[in-house]
Amino acid sequence: MSERGRFITLEGGEGAGKSTQAARLADWLKARGIAVLLTREPGGSPKAETLRALLLGGQVAPFGADAEALVFALARADHMAQTIRPALAAGTWVISDRFFDSTRAYQGAAGVSPERLSELEGIAVGDDRPDLTLILDLPAAEGLERIDGRDAGPDRFERDDRHEQEARRLAFLKIAEGEPGRCVVVDARAGEDHVAEAIRAVVSERLSPTIAPSP
Amino acid sequence: MSERGRFITLEGGEGAGKSTQAARLADWLKARGIAVLLTREPGGSPKAETLRALLLGGQVAPFGADAEALVFALARADHMAQTIRPALAAGTWVISDRFFDSTRAYQGAAGVSPERLSELEGIAVGDDRPDLTLILDLPAAEGLERIDGRDAGPDRFERDDRHEQEARRLAFLKIAEGEPGRCVVVDARAGEDHVAEAIRAVVSERLSPTIAPSP
Repeated sequence: MSERGRFITLEGGEGAGKSTQAARLADWLKARGIAVLLTREPGGSPKAETLRALLLGGQVAPFGADAEALVFALARADHMAQTIRPALAAGTWVISDRFFDSTRAYQGAAGVSPERLSELEGIAVGDDRPDLTLILDLPAAEGLERIDGRDAGPDRFERDDRHEQEARRLAFLKIAEGEPGRCVVVDARAGEDHVAEAIRAVVSERLSPTIAPSP
Repeated sequence: MSERGRFITLEGGEGAGKSTQAARLADWLKARGIAVLLTREPGGSPKAETLRALLLGGQVAPFGADAEALVFALARADHMAQTIRPALAAGTWVISDRFFDSTRAYQGAAGVSPERLSELEGIAVGDDRPDLTLILDLPAAEGLERIDGRDAGPDRFERDDRHEQEARRLAFLKIAEGEPGRCVVVDARAGEDHVAEAIRAVVSERLSPTIAPSP
């Protein structure tokens, strides 16, 4: 039986570079001989990807923030059961582009109570908490500028205004402050290479990724 | 531009024969030259079918009855937008095996407030209410006996006990009592042929299905 894999999540507002950095981190770990599964939320399993389409298409939005938080949790429960837990159990490291901190920050900023969020988290995630969460921090205005440069039109959450985006940023920073054992804030204003280097330094220090010795 | 199609729903508890009777009614209407779309809930569109799998697989149940009501409504909104509304607009008659009365009866009996149910219905369905709803009525014990005879194992709602099934039955009868213009109760204890005949009589009387005259 192999050792349980490590579970790393990347969090932050729109345009912070999470997807890019998640992919770069995965490549770096793979180059060190570590089996890595790169996944994302919402989504990461066939059923959860359907829910992603509903969430980012704005089809859940008319039902309100509590409904959105619930559907994110529902997608997360399937993502955990179908994708993340089996990978971790097989010794694979899992890197997820967004996870429950996004629900805390986004739906929390939209008015869903901490009690409700914690309840949903318990049902969806159970005890399989991330070993390390990298919070990519960026002023909201800068993130929105980066999104403007993309080919794809903005999704339901990218469309929210700067005030809302700034509230989410503060929520992420508060999460990091409250759980320093799990979370590290990374300054995402630096260039892509610098951010990647900073992330590698944190992962090296916190999780000591080494090629597993042959038995 | 063709005349808007008629919208018929079949409702009732587990084992009442809704699927069988919906198919028979569709065949009868087709034989009269009417274009018919036979659909079902939860489901009826690709995204809604994914939600069906989560609902009937019991994956939403841990989140509670309000969550289930919401996910049914979410599936219904997609079913309406993708399947039902386009068909009705094209002049096709739509027969749905279950619709919003099932949410009222099942989740209502499970404790979701009428206000919440009405709110979800408004968001999911809007003004496209069924023209006719046939409520197939059967004592709960009899319905459960019929299910026992099936090859497939019971789903999340079929597994509920007789007390719960009886509460749903009463809820359906109360809906029929409250909306006699839309709902007709059909005694489902009779044999399949007799029930089919009773349904055809109601549809003939209420909706006068005739072959559309050529212009």
